[in-house]
Amino acid sequence: MSKRRRNFWGWGFEDQQPRPADVEEAGRGAREHLGFEPAEVEPAPRLEDIELPPPRIEPPAWLAHFCEHDAYSRASHAYGRAYRDLVRAFRGRFDHPPDVVAHPGDERELEQVLDWCAEAGAAAIPFGGGTSVVGGVEPRVPQDAAVTIDLKRMNRVLEVDPVSRAARIQAGAAGPELEEQLKAHGLTLRHYPQSFEFSTLGGWIATRAGGHFATLHTRIDDFVESVRAITPGGAWESRRLPGSGAGPSPDRLLIGSEGILGVITEAWVRVQEPPAFKESAAVLFDAFDPGAGAVRELAQSRLFPSNCRLLDPGEAALTGAAPEGKAMLVLGFEGPHDVSGAMVEAIELCRDHGGEARERRGESEGTWREAFLRAPYLRDTLVAAGILAETFETAVTWDRLAGFVAGVRERTEAALGGEGRVTCRLTHAYPDGAAPYFTVLAPARRGSELEQWDEVKAAASEAIAAAGGTITHHHAVGRDHRPWYDRQRPDPFAEALRAAKAAVDPRGMLNPGVLLDP
Amino acid sequence: MSKRRRNFWGWGFEDQQPRPADVEEAGRGAREHLGFEPAEVEPAPRLEDIELPPPRIEPPAWLAHFCEHDAYSRASHAYGRAYRDLVRAFRGRFDHPPDVVAHPGDERELEQVLDWCAEAGAAAIPFGGGTSVVGGVEPRVPQDAAVTIDLKRMNRVLEVDPVSRAARIQAGAAGPELEEQLKAHGLTLRHYPQSFEFSTLGGWIATRAGGHFATLHTRIDDFVESVRAITPGGAWESRRLPGSGAGPSPDRLLIGSEGILGVITEAWVRVQEPPAFKESAAVLFDAFDPGAGAVRELAQSRLFPSNCRLLDPGEAALTGAAPEGKAMLVLGFEGPHDVSGAMVEAIELCRDHGGEARERRGESEGTWREAFLRAPYLRDTLVAAGILAETFETAVTWDRLAGFVAGVRERTEAALGGEGRVTCRLTHAYPDGAAPYFTVLAPARRGSELEQWDEVKAAASEAIAAAGGTITHHHAVGRDHRPWYDRQRPDPFAEALRAAKAAVDPRGMLNPGVLLDP
Repeated sequence: MSKRRRNFWGWGFEDQQPRPADVEEAGRGAREHLGFEPAEVEPAPRLEDIELPPPRIEPPAWLAHFCEHDAYSRASHAYGRAYRDLVRAFRGRFDHPPDVVAHPGDERELEQVLDWCAEAGAAAIPFGGGTSVVGGVEPRVPQDAAVTIDLKRMNRVLEVDPVSRAARIQAGAAGPELEEQLKAHGLTLRHYPQSFEFSTLGGWIATRAGGHFATLHTRIDDFVESVRAITPGGAWESRRLPGSGAGPSPDRLLIGSEGILGVITEAWVRVQEPPAFKESAAVLFDAFDPGAGAVRELAQSRLFPSNCRLLDPGEAALTGAAPEGKAMLVLGFEGPHDVSGAMVEAIELCRDHGGEARERRGESEGTWREAFLRAPYLRDTLVAAGILAETFETAVTWDRLAGFVAGVRERTEAALGGEGRVTCRLTHAYPDGAAPYFTVLAPARRGSELEQWDEVKAAASEAIAAAGGTITHHHAVGRDHRPWYDRQRPDPFAEALRAAKAAVDPRGMLNPGVLLDP
Repeated sequence: MSKRRRNFWGWGFEDQQPRPADVEEAGRGAREHLGFEPAEVEPAPRLEDIELPPPRIEPPAWLAHFCEHDAYSRASHAYGRAYRDLVRAFRGRFDHPPDVVAHPGDERELEQVLDWCAEAGAAAIPFGGGTSVVGGVEPRVPQDAAVTIDLKRMNRVLEVDPVSRAARIQAGAAGPELEEQLKAHGLTLRHYPQSFEFSTLGGWIATRAGGHFATLHTRIDDFVESVRAITPGGAWESRRLPGSGAGPSPDRLLIGSEGILGVITEAWVRVQEPPAFKESAAVLFDAFDPGAGAVRELAQSRLFPSNCRLLDPGEAALTGAAPEGKAMLVLGFEGPHDVSGAMVEAIELCRDHGGEARERRGESEGTWREAFLRAPYLRDTLVAAGILAETFETAVTWDRLAGFVAGVRERTEAALGGEGRVTCRLTHAYPDGAAPYFTVLAPARRGSELEQWDEVKAAASEAIAAAGGTITHHHAVGRDHRPWYDRQRPDPFAEALRAAKAAVDPRGMLNPGVLLDP
């Protein structure tokens, strides 16, 4: 309902899309840069060419004013933004679009939609920024109809408590929207996932999104003070508290529930003043392993770097930020007090591991962050150019890290059949382990991209599971990670979660297929 | 089964108990010190005078070698260590002792006990150190029999991973036991609740116990890497991971579950090297409120003091550590790097709020910690001397703190009928709020101590609930906090928790009455 429309198949807004000639050029350039054979750069899909199955239900008259079922609305809510989503959309394949997209403006309208879904026997799919990379918003459901509930109209900062440094924010607020509103109060959340431009507070909470800080407060969980959600059984709202030991935390059951227990409508989150002091540096290592040793020591040091991202040589070279063959650690500190002492200690500690600091004063972090946020835009072009471009991520304890990363990379490369490349960076660091994040770039098998990727993904996931990693550190489970998630979680917990869902959603209408069998 | 026996009714071991003459003297002194009228100091109860209802079941022959049902075992597992527990035990009132106390030495034996409880229709009460102050281990159950499962034989550190700084520890290990075993590896957990001497890792996890650190890592949750529990439906064990975004965390549902979902048997926890640097100081303020202002700024400063406990003038005077009328902040920093800079900044920040640093170099923290750990011993004497001595605690956001503390204190004092005193300290500080901890000391109404305390406790709890605090920050819910907990938690969450319990414990045999209706 916003005037600026999002690209129905890829990243960004419609008015940001590159011209076909530019895509053509960039696509060819990308293949060359990656050392792939030249190949045709295909034109982007056009909405008018897309054929959607007709909607199976229509909203009742009293909901019609905030519901849509035109092709654009349905196509643009049919997928997240994984590689397999982009490929299908690019090829015009929309097998399971929602029948209706509802845009409730408040909780009353949301409840009306849920009531209607219950009556109509439709599945209800909560939808924030639609940036899921795990099939989390795709209406592949057993019900005869699916209603996607887009929360973007609920995008306001409702209340600010400057004393406690907390704000009550609606779930549909995207990163830039909520930061802009907080800025008026001199405050900031500083939660920057790669999807920041489009993803929403509610989506972050529903998926336990990883954010800005590489250590200490690594994910949105750490900023949540209380959550409110609408379930079919009524409102689920925790008391606003700085801490509570009253039973298992109600928030912690909603956080990561990926829309299966309720539709998150708002949350109190901890905010902060913008950091008065910042330092950043790039540290080069001869290889990934000594760099990982430095990251481990940093994570165990109580120095709490805000950025501590280690790029392996392949990834460092790809970003153009480091000389060939070097691993690069992007290191940052920020806070209300001078952080230069911490940076000096950190660099010294890196030196003990053979690290060589290359620069200070923010350039490297800036360069890196810009590349980070531009990456999803680039990916649309890669798809057009026939390049398989996807990431997957995990976490593992330090004792297993070195062999783990090498093993997962090797098995993923093997699944690629020797073509393409797999690179790795550590995105988050804990005292007891780290989160490796892998990027896969390979020539796509045109026409069978999904099969190609699914094979690679399965090989990677099996390697991760076999070596004791988690199937996801911060991308969530959705529908795509289910086989490995199901093996990973404790069986009695699965039973407990299934029962908990049945208690609050007896019809099983909320995001069926995610986390649990529908 | 350990050779050294715990006092069956109060704190400490039997061989540590003071002589009657010393209790007499200390009791009289305490009344005088508190300004209460002199009163008789009653003699401690003797086990041989206690009459217990006969056990309703007996363990089958194949479990008999690790089960006990003698008077000592049953009486010493009948209560936690709340004031109402001490008073009842002191008066020889044991209405609901367990029928049998099982001491499984491993998971196989534990499973055998659970199987037997299921067959026999008995309730199963997990028991760590038995230091609950909320009725968490009291067998007030609807079943016809109750078996308490004491885990103290399962007290070993099973595995240490020095690279990831983590250890796999059995749930029955008490504080000193696990620290001693970790010390052999040059590591420490540094989780020091007041009950440290007796309480166990499993108990800490089951109750979300608050520990050593006043900021940042305030409770055991923050050190848990994975948990293993035995449920009637099988083992619930999460994968050992530094972080995972795969659905709602299985650990987070067990953490705080207070024995209703399963019996925690072991956990991987994050450990650390002992801090190389420590600094401590006492800072005096003219009143509580400016001190609280300083604590708030400290908590929002990213300085992360390890100790940051603000005592109101009444409490500061009582400990003898501060001049009359002054509030005192006990401030500590520790870490692997020099922390003197942080201390200087913190003291400067306190000065902005009128705080005057009185000493450095550890004496005040030492004095305070010693008093902190001695307090439960003293309480036995207070009970003998007819002194109502109890604490309760909560947490609330900063915007409400000042009025909140004053209001709760006032309503609690009113319920005391003008006799006695209510003091407050802040034990844990968050960027968005703090945990006020109240101490009540009053002349007991001899013979109706329970009624007296229950009235006071109800008044305090109502005041907390009405002002938006939590019914517990780290003492847990147990049976005693149920009325306020039930009002505090979101209804759909209560339904979800009830369903989750029914899924893993369909007979409702695990700690019935705790968190949920039996």
